[in-house]
Amino acid sequence: MTRILSESSVGIVTPQRAHFTEALYLESGEVLDGFELVYETYGVLRADGSNAVLICHALSGNHHAAGIYCEDDAKPGWWDALIGPGKPIDTNRFFVVCANNIGGCDGSTGPSSICATTGEPWGSLFPQVAVGDWVETQKRLGEHLQIRHWAAVVGGSLGGMQALDWSIRYPSWVSHCVVIAAAPDLTAQNIAFNEIARQAIMSDPDWLGGDYLKAQTSPDKGMALARMVGHLTYMSADKMSDRFGRELRQGSLDPSDEEAPVFQVESYLRYQGSQFVSRFDANTYLLMTRALDRYDASAHTNGDMSAAMRNACADFLVISFSSDWRFAPTRSQELVNALLAAEKRVTYSDIESDAGHDAFLLNEPEYIALFDAWMQRVAT
Amino acid sequence: MTRILSESSVGIVTPQRAHFTEALYLESGEVLDGFELVYETYGVLRADGSNAVLICHALSGNHHAAGIYCEDDAKPGWWDALIGPGKPIDTNRFFVVCANNIGGCDGSTGPSSICATTGEPWGSLFPQVAVGDWVETQKRLGEHLQIRHWAAVVGGSLGGMQALDWSIRYPSWVSHCVVIAAAPDLTAQNIAFNEIARQAIMSDPDWLGGDYLKAQTSPDKGMALARMVGHLTYMSADKMSDRFGRELRQGSLDPSDEEAPVFQVESYLRYQGSQFVSRFDANTYLLMTRALDRYDASAHTNGDMSAAMRNACADFLVISFSSDWRFAPTRSQELVNALLAAEKRVTYSDIESDAGHDAFLLNEPEYIALFDAWMQRVAT
Repeated sequence: MTRILSESSVGIVTPQRAHFTEALYLESGEVLDGFELVYETYGVLRADGSNAVLICHALSGNHHAAGIYCEDDAKPGWWDALIGPGKPIDTNRFFVVCANNIGGCDGSTGPSSICATTGEPWGSLFPQVAVGDWVETQKRLGEHLQIRHWAAVVGGSLGGMQALDWSIRYPSWVSHCVVIAAAPDLTAQNIAFNEIARQAIMSDPDWLGGDYLKAQTSPDKGMALARMVGHLTYMSADKMSDRFGRELRQGSLDPSDEEAPVFQVESYLRYQGSQFVSRFDANTYLLMTRALDRYDASAHTNGDMSAAMRNACADFLVISFSSDWRFAPTRSQELVNALLAAEKRVTYSDIESDAGHDAFLLNEPEYIALFDAWMQRVAT
Repeated sequence: MTRILSESSVGIVTPQRAHFTEALYLESGEVLDGFELVYETYGVLRADGSNAVLICHALSGNHHAAGIYCEDDAKPGWWDALIGPGKPIDTNRFFVVCANNIGGCDGSTGPSSICATTGEPWGSLFPQVAVGDWVETQKRLGEHLQIRHWAAVVGGSLGGMQALDWSIRYPSWVSHCVVIAAAPDLTAQNIAFNEIARQAIMSDPDWLGGDYLKAQTSPDKGMALARMVGHLTYMSADKMSDRFGRELRQGSLDPSDEEAPVFQVESYLRYQGSQFVSRFDANTYLLMTRALDRYDASAHTNGDMSAAMRNACADFLVISFSSDWRFAPTRSQELVNALLAAEKRVTYSDIESDAGHDAFLLNEPEYIALFDAWMQRVAT
């Protein structure tokens, strides 16, 4: 760490890589003959392994949850607001682990990595993975790091589904479970938005059935559209009105160019779409949204969420955000009700915020304070 | 009318066509050297012209608001639930007029009609039209029909914007104005959804800058996507959960076909998208959404809605639907507040419904009853 870094930053971090040679039997029935995970850790693991915290990332996240990569790196990890010395996930106390999920596109085995058998990018041949598969790979990473127990498993959105699944699948591993802006499964509306994003990608003639990398092309237009749909639904209507209103884009009313954006919100969305294209893989987007759609925490208990939670040993913290309409507070409340019915210890808060679903990534004071206070109970 | 028709149907109707040769100066600054309107009428115009009601259609609507085209026509006009003998817009009392707006694709002059100058479809050369332009063309149609005054101007969604604009632009023409599921302008979120729909169309390689008809092609994939976005946002999340839940499509879990829909809601949306492609023109969709985005009832009063309404002479009925999140009740309330501040007569109701924005098209009993009762005050 250099002097220019804030005392609350984990500082300069370096991703690590682990190779797993044992076959991974996926929920789809397919098998991966081994896989690689890229991950980061922050803080120091105690000799008794009691202070490990697992962070699970969401749809467009990766292993880079906190810190920076070099002194002039202006863009810290995606959850830097919550992870670091003195922050809710306090690296003075915890050893924090975050891996890029398999199927991802930031270094772990996924559709854009090279398949050993063919010597080419996996592309359309990469199998569909599920939330439960990610939990299995995260468990292997824990074991690789000499960890046999998580002081806490923490995630937001799709990451929250993984945290929840951990508490069900490996109850003895998880003593605290934090599920933020998530749900035990997606609603029809939520699936529909994901389906539109997928259709946008698959309708792009450069998608080529998923084998665009082999053809050295890229379904950029479809990906940009998919991101625009996603991004729009992660914001609240009020926040968008406050931020953009009906403000016109400068020089926008050139009637000779009907394709040019007229309103600020249009050029903002187009920019968000185009930025995403350069950093994300289309097949990963398809795979991640399918994993989201198909997750159902009560699949093995005939839809009974309370029964699904019966064997969990964790203390739960469930957080929702008042303006999140993609993962609405009512869905978190369903989970809380199921946990209460199963006689589990659960703390729930619906944080007042106008930031929509994206609030879980932000430095919202009430959110940080609540999260920080609750994490004090996580004994190390 | 045949015996098989319900007594509350206007029966078999025939579209009519009117040609207007006088130049139309558009808000964009461009000029149309005349235009054609396709329209329908129901009921009988009184000799004194006192019973004419104008219906304004929304984004995907047209002139066929009520009745059927032949005895075995299973699909009545889009507002058949509200227009007919004994219905709120009672054809025993009123002479009802509904025209396909210019820029449309159902017979009135628009991007898919033939440009007299070139002998080819207008395509990219068709000018952008505005809500105010539609009001001008509707006024010319009224004059063509010997009408100088509307007993009521009625519209939902984009049609509601036209009704509102009539009351501002030609106050002496409008004695009753019904604005349903509409707003004085669109929010940033609403514009953003329209922008995504437009991007979907314009990203389709078959769009060809709008000149796809000349090339005998069609941006079907983009149009289907655009419709999926629209359709999804016109429904409420609760209604979608009730209707589709997380029900799987039969035979959906064939892991060899990753592109096949898994959930019922996915195949429903894909079907809606594909159906729309066959009946709607992509350039019209672009034009209509731009007209929606750009409409601002208070543009000439510096954003002061109350000042905008000052000269209106109409009695107003404003209706919103509780689950409509695309045109939320708060936006209708803004209009009502402005009308009250301008000391206008206004009746407002937020109808409890789970049908979302689409509720304005449906036979919802509370809605019909309220509308019907209010229409009794429209003297003929």
